Amino acid sequence: MSVGPEPSGPEKIVDAVVFDTFGTVVDWKSGVADAVEVIARRYGFEVDPVEFALRWRARYQPAMKPVRDGSREFVTLDVLHRENLIATAHELGVPIDRIEPTDLDWLNRAWHRLTGWPDSVPGLTELKRHFIIGPLSNGHVALLTNMAKHAGLPWDVIIGSDVTRSYKPDPNAYLGTARLLDLPPQRVMLCAAHNSDLAAAQRAGLRTAFIARPQEYGPNQRTDLHPTGSWDIVAHDIPDLATRLIGHRATG
Amino acid sequence: MSVGPEPSGPEKIVDAVVFDTFGTVVDWKSGVADAVEVIARRYGFEVDPVEFALRWRARYQPAMKPVRDGSREFVTLDVLHRENLIATAHELGVPIDRIEPTDLDWLNRAWHRLTGWPDSVPGLTELKRHFIIGPLSNGHVALLTNMAKHAGLPWDVIIGSDVTRSYKPDPNAYLGTARLLDLPPQRVMLCAAHNSDLAAAQRAGLRTAFIARPQEYGPNQRTDLHPTGSWDIVAHDIPDLATRLIGHRATG
Repeated sequence: MSVGPEPSGPEKIVDAVVFDTFGTVVDWKSGVADAVEVIARRYGFEVDPVEFALRWRARYQPAMKPVRDGSREFVTLDVLHRENLIATAHELGVPIDRIEPTDLDWLNRAWHRLTGWPDSVPGLTELKRHFIIGPLSNGHVALLTNMAKHAGLPWDVIIGSDVTRSYKPDPNAYLGTARLLDLPPQRVMLCAAHNSDLAAAQRAGLRTAFIARPQEYGPNQRTDLHPTGSWDIVAHDIPDLATRLIGHRATG
Repeated sequence: MSVGPEPSGPEKIVDAVVFDTFGTVVDWKSGVADAVEVIARRYGFEVDPVEFALRWRARYQPAMKPVRDGSREFVTLDVLHRENLIATAHELGVPIDRIEPTDLDWLNRAWHRLTGWPDSVPGLTELKRHFIIGPLSNGHVALLTNMAKHAGLPWDVIIGSDVTRSYKPDPNAYLGTARLLDLPPQRVMLCAAHNSDLAAAQRAGLRTAFIARPQEYGPNQRTDLHPTGSWDIVAHDIPDLATRLIGHRATG
């Protein structure tokens, strides 16, 4: 028997906590560099796998721009990653034409097989006990689902960029996610390691949490080492976010 | 270090197993009747909660028809359930106008708070170790997410009817789900307790699994007691489906 429509316990400040994924939850640099190294060994290519990963990633934001400004119809990151992979190989003199199609596809899908930072799974598992959790990523449903299976990310729900047909920081990426969760934007919190993502979420009316990921780009990282906006929460890592959110309740 | 693009182990017959939800995974009759009983006691209504639940549900398929045939724009089950709730109350002489708005909303959202059949969570948990699992339901993302939290359903991914903007048996409900998973239809299996749902899935190219839920409508149920089509698998319950699917592998 149900207990009926009475509020039970103190009110939470949000109902859902959603996460930027690449860099905030998973370590794309190591995962992608590992896949590059496997292919380089197999084909005898001379390439620095980490440099390859960084240059591949450097083409990520520019590649989404035509979709954001409406000059290109929405395509998933699998499509953009493959175009960027080929361009990066040419840039670094890697003879990518020699790679078998199945191997090339496997390499391109390295972005589906990333692993969480050490605190990610424990922190998400704790948050999941109290909140709806999910990615709010530029990844598409299939990529994010495969990634969750690979990394053990315990998402409640996956709303991909191919569902909202929007790439962050397009406001529709944030608002469309809140709408599908049937929550007002202020009942959803974005956690991200990137100040620009949080700024766009805040403009859309979401709550915001910053965690620094100073190793995302390696030892020479200069950006996003500190919060630069007025975010609702600044946490050390995802378990610390959980502690702050679960302690952070007001009656009412 | 990744092991590279070699196949690992025998090939599975599908990559994803998706589930009809109301009736197949969760017991809507008990959950809805419980909520009706709470409201009836609170307001002093004379009503048989199970009869109310059955009559409310009887309006479900007709309510989706205008959306399926294109004469009504897509609206979620929250909207249809509320219309059907009011019609059912009038049919049974329940003075629904006396119910406070928050209580009415809570009653309408009984469909978000259903509980799995006893085998559902253990069976899904086992399947999740080997396959992508998710609902393929006429429920929307928010309803299915709330239901998963309430019932402990360990879905990997939730693709709601508001994502495909289609109600089963519209072929797009099945094909849109496969497309978002980036899988060919034949790599996706629908498990359902309803032969008509499986027939539509099969026509769309999906694999099919039937499990009977002879208590879905109560002791007088006459329909869907047995498989009536040529389904890929007929199982006793979800753990039995897991056993058959995990044993059912071919090399290659």
